[in-house]
Amino acid sequence: MASPLFLGIDGGGTRCRARLADADGKTLGEGVAGPATMRFGLATAAEAMLTAAREALAQAGLEEDVFARTYVGIGLAGTGHPGARAELEGWAHPFAGAWFEGDGYLAMLGAFNGGDGGVVVVGTGSIGVYWREHTVRVGGYGFPISDEGSGADIGLHAIRRALRTLDGRAPPSAFSREVLAAAGEDAPGVVSWMDHASATDYATLAPIVTRHAKAGDIDAMTIMQVAGAAIADLVMGLSKAGAPQVALVGGLSEITREWMPGDTGETCARPMSDAMAGGILLARRKSGL
Amino acid sequence: MASPLFLGIDGGGTRCRARLADADGKTLGEGVAGPATMRFGLATAAEAMLTAAREALAQAGLEEDVFARTYVGIGLAGTGHPGARAELEGWAHPFAGAWFEGDGYLAMLGAFNGGDGGVVVVGTGSIGVYWREHTVRVGGYGFPISDEGSGADIGLHAIRRALRTLDGRAPPSAFSREVLAAAGEDAPGVVSWMDHASATDYATLAPIVTRHAKAGDIDAMTIMQVAGAAIADLVMGLSKAGAPQVALVGGLSEITREWMPGDTGETCARPMSDAMAGGILLARRKSGL
Repeated sequence: MASPLFLGIDGGGTRCRARLADADGKTLGEGVAGPATMRFGLATAAEAMLTAAREALAQAGLEEDVFARTYVGIGLAGTGHPGARAELEGWAHPFAGAWFEGDGYLAMLGAFNGGDGGVVVVGTGSIGVYWREHTVRVGGYGFPISDEGSGADIGLHAIRRALRTLDGRAPPSAFSREVLAAAGEDAPGVVSWMDHASATDYATLAPIVTRHAKAGDIDAMTIMQVAGAAIADLVMGLSKAGAPQVALVGGLSEITREWMPGDTGETCARPMSDAMAGGILLARRKSGL
Repeated sequence: MASPLFLGIDGGGTRCRARLADADGKTLGEGVAGPATMRFGLATAAEAMLTAAREALAQAGLEEDVFARTYVGIGLAGTGHPGARAELEGWAHPFAGAWFEGDGYLAMLGAFNGGDGGVVVVGTGSIGVYWREHTVRVGGYGFPISDEGSGADIGLHAIRRALRTLDGRAPPSAFSREVLAAAGEDAPGVVSWMDHASATDYATLAPIVTRHAKAGDIDAMTIMQVAGAAIADLVMGLSKAGAPQVALVGGLSEITREWMPGDTGETCARPMSDAMAGGILLARRKSGL
């Protein structure tokens, strides 16, 4: 009988990544696809997960029949949505076994290779997660009611600032011009952009903010300082709940670290590995293989 | 021939009000209906406007045949939406004549009985408007990218604060409990509430915030201070643009005034009349009757 394979899937609001590993832990291939969040329902998320999985398979030079001996650990954004869990449990996936967790859980497993610590994810959304004796989850209820300090939140504040330059409340700047160019150009354009904008769309503006903040634009710097304070608030929430260490993970974690108040950024750990590694670890643990 | 009638319609994100007056300016009747904003399209807005108009008519003891000699001045939220103007111009309304403006314009006409001054509207949304030699419009691009200090914005901040009490980042309070009770109770409930919440829904939370701020809740007070500063920012925008005076209007204007920084609240004018009176004035001016 062929040996089992393990797949770690990290689904987020911007993209979905998958990594295939053999029983010795060796990476065989990786794949990437579009957003995989339960906020858009299972159908879209499932398609993204399978696309990323097939790409990992192709990179490994394997055929889809190996799915039948592949155990999958999946982290997904939006699993807190009502009905999301039930939908996932009912998914007729092609794998030998699949286990689902919120995206933060896999990031935590990966960050400390299963060791004791919490993570604050700073990406399209933001959330703090820590599991040990009990489950702790801070923030991450979704944009715009939560996810302070996230890419989406940073993008929203960038638009708010840029709009002030359109009606004379603030002078235009290179920063405001670049934000407007990316989100509708003029007032009617921005309003129309907003009508169809998801958290993922707002988050596409975050790199403009971080770049201009580094270059010294005062508005961009203020946005990043507010974001940094919000991320520090999540870190403190986990520490208060007993996390002995907290790692910052996610696409915006390293840049946000620099804008956190005092030494709160420096004292946060750097992750040992990523959420896909956490997914593989989860699949190994759950399958017992 | 029967003398002309004038109808002023004030459409906003929370409700639509109408006032019918005769040629001498005497109020004959008033009506009220649900939200009338172009954000939800003409069909919904038109239905609300006609419902309010018919109620005003009924109160006046008149039949619908008088619409043929009724001239209407209409202020509507969301007229900045792309295509909104064209849709309105194409509306097959039953009136002798109808003229459309953004909701802020009618409020301004009413606030100074057609005299020189700007208004900052503080309701479901927020906007500053001033027309004289040139058109000035500050803010009011819609929630969540704009409308700082509005009821919707206040409601959003209330939820953000309340969610912090669900995961131990902040202790629960009477304020947070009341916000949660109104917006989903627990985390999954709030997330689900958010999925369907419009700016109007967020604004329903504002009275909870203003009440607890008055009672001394520090979180509610902070939200109102931030909102007050945002409204002061709109007032300053109009002053900078040449408005000799600025009136605060809208359902949240009087309570927000108390939270504005320094004496900025007290120095703002109180409106002489309302947006419906402004609509009647607009209809008289445009019809030349």
